[in-house]
Amino acid sequence: MAENKLGKQTFIFKNRPKITSACSIVGVKEGQGPLNKWFDMILEEDTFGEKTWEKSESKMLKEAILIALQKSGKNKTEIDVLLCGDLLNQLMSSSFTARDMHIPFIGLYGACSAMTENLLMSSVLVDGDYASNIIAGASSHYCTAERQFRMPLEHGNQRPPSAQWTATAAGVMVITTGKKYESNSPFLKLDDSANLKPPKRICITHGTIGKIIDTGMKDANQMGAAMAPAAVDTILNHFADTGFEPGHYDVILTGDLGLIGKQIAIDLLVDAGFPKEVLDNCYDDCGTMLFDEEQDVHSGASGCGCSASVLSGYVYKKMLQGDINRVLILSTGALLSTISPFQGESIPGIAHAISLEAY
Amino acid sequence: MAENKLGKQTFIFKNRPKITSACSIVGVKEGQGPLNKWFDMILEEDTFGEKTWEKSESKMLKEAILIALQKSGKNKTEIDVLLCGDLLNQLMSSSFTARDMHIPFIGLYGACSAMTENLLMSSVLVDGDYASNIIAGASSHYCTAERQFRMPLEHGNQRPPSAQWTATAAGVMVITTGKKYESNSPFLKLDDSANLKPPKRICITHGTIGKIIDTGMKDANQMGAAMAPAAVDTILNHFADTGFEPGHYDVILTGDLGLIGKQIAIDLLVDAGFPKEVLDNCYDDCGTMLFDEEQDVHSGASGCGCSASVLSGYVYKKMLQGDINRVLILSTGALLSTISPFQGESIPGIAHAISLEAY
Repeated sequence: MAENKLGKQTFIFKNRPKITSACSIVGVKEGQGPLNKWFDMILEEDTFGEKTWEKSESKMLKEAILIALQKSGKNKTEIDVLLCGDLLNQLMSSSFTARDMHIPFIGLYGACSAMTENLLMSSVLVDGDYASNIIAGASSHYCTAERQFRMPLEHGNQRPPSAQWTATAAGVMVITTGKKYESNSPFLKLDDSANLKPPKRICITHGTIGKIIDTGMKDANQMGAAMAPAAVDTILNHFADTGFEPGHYDVILTGDLGLIGKQIAIDLLVDAGFPKEVLDNCYDDCGTMLFDEEQDVHSGASGCGCSASVLSGYVYKKMLQGDINRVLILSTGALLSTISPFQGESIPGIAHAISLEAY
Repeated sequence: MAENKLGKQTFIFKNRPKITSACSIVGVKEGQGPLNKWFDMILEEDTFGEKTWEKSESKMLKEAILIALQKSGKNKTEIDVLLCGDLLNQLMSSSFTARDMHIPFIGLYGACSAMTENLLMSSVLVDGDYASNIIAGASSHYCTAERQFRMPLEHGNQRPPSAQWTATAAGVMVITTGKKYESNSPFLKLDDSANLKPPKRICITHGTIGKIIDTGMKDANQMGAAMAPAAVDTILNHFADTGFEPGHYDVILTGDLGLIGKQIAIDLLVDAGFPKEVLDNCYDDCGTMLFDEEQDVHSGASGCGCSASVLSGYVYKKMLQGDINRVLILSTGALLSTISPFQGESIPGIAHAISLEAY
């Protein structure tokens, strides 16, 4: 058994890689949602001044990287590796962002599971002392995702009630080795008043790599239902591997199961013996948090940018303030391709988990 | 500076992760090429009995995984992580293979750089003691790549002389921690005669993560030219980071630069001061090795499966036999998307390097 592995699927990060800074950028609609005060930037228009949606998304990711980098107080040349992922074919947003950054680059594809997939591998690199500073990020854009996975917007097609709204959002974190850690967050400086609790530091303690779970679901408008079993599998394995009590975390968050998938996840977890009262207290889904019901997104938000921005914005800042201490977050991905449904294939789901701790 | 990092882009793997077994499967045309005796399996027809090309590719990758696993003498439940990549949108081959394997899965996208990208991250996981056994693999298929990136085969379009032929091939390696290493290769057992040198063991000693290099090339039929500068950048950084002499390696291999790209790489390396006589002795490109000139593939082979199968077949077995002792191999990727050329974008290139050593 590897020294830094617990049970079947979980890594333990004994050197506790630190999240030195984070940045979240969201689009117009996301900026009108209930979490808007937690984001670093809200776009004035979703084009972000670019001529194509793909370039808009790439610019949003790049901007988030530059802001996170600035907040970290680090120089670009100090960054050892950039790990990014997005939903676009050939990781278009990530690849073209990385081209402009001139930082050694690893691209990961895990559909909407990109953010925790990237953070997991980033934590391994930093914890194992292969890198001192890493930038990990993920993005999605409503307009690029719609035209790639469903219909061009100009088509004006109707969305069924079970459909989710791909978030126009990017989330980026700078992960650094514990040894040289310094909190250097402008967010805290802005709010530095006598009433504020002293700023916390945040580290990544564990990561659980997900297995693909495919329950045979074939409806591409039921992504939450397709991904929920994978999220549940990773959550249960995480607790089995670590031996943590169900109440160990203040917050357990899934990525983008949405309203339907969240309920399925709760049902499956309770069926598996996870205490309902613990879930009632701590469990939520980023896909149900990003938009208000009045915003007419049907079953909630989705996309790599959903969990990436909620984590880099809301969760990270709540942890800095000391409102949340222990978080388990799982970005969730549906690994179907644009042509696999036409070949009769069902939707493979996956979820990777990371544990954050404030101290 | 991180303890396991050398210079700007290179990791050193002090625990020397071992390649316990490997498997290469190639298509009909590849099986008629000059390396055919080195592959573990040659398909009788490129459909591999499946109804769609994507399913054929996925089956080929899965079969290579199962054979490599069998050769390793390990049980599926002993594998900690599966890392795979391919060229298809949403990593269709890898995702659907991973679905059937029930092993924790990380998907990486680096276009044709997938094999060394996967081996690099696998080496980190094993070297850093996060995993004891990992399967790393990559695949490509001429028919899936043509229809996704260029034209459906039925269109019968002409290929310009600079175009390369996407290899129908998969390569897979089982990477294990040094502590429990046992050589268990059926290949060696078959050839076990008094004439054969004692079998070697093979480990991964270094990995160099590539930066994206984009020289403004926009012709999608000139992939080799687009990727050559990235390969050269990674090679030069690898030697600068490690301090190795130019003649350190018996063989330096790039992934799929093809005939044109290979010549560009030689010119750029010589321009940068790399001794021409050393290159003449040790440098080659997998894309120029897989097919004979008579096979009419124009500028050579390409695709994730090209370097994956040449490495897992020819190079690995040559090293086992003791014919080659030190190898630097760089899978090379062109990170353009299917729509980026239509948006006026040039082709970003990347190359990740790993060092293998027989002992």
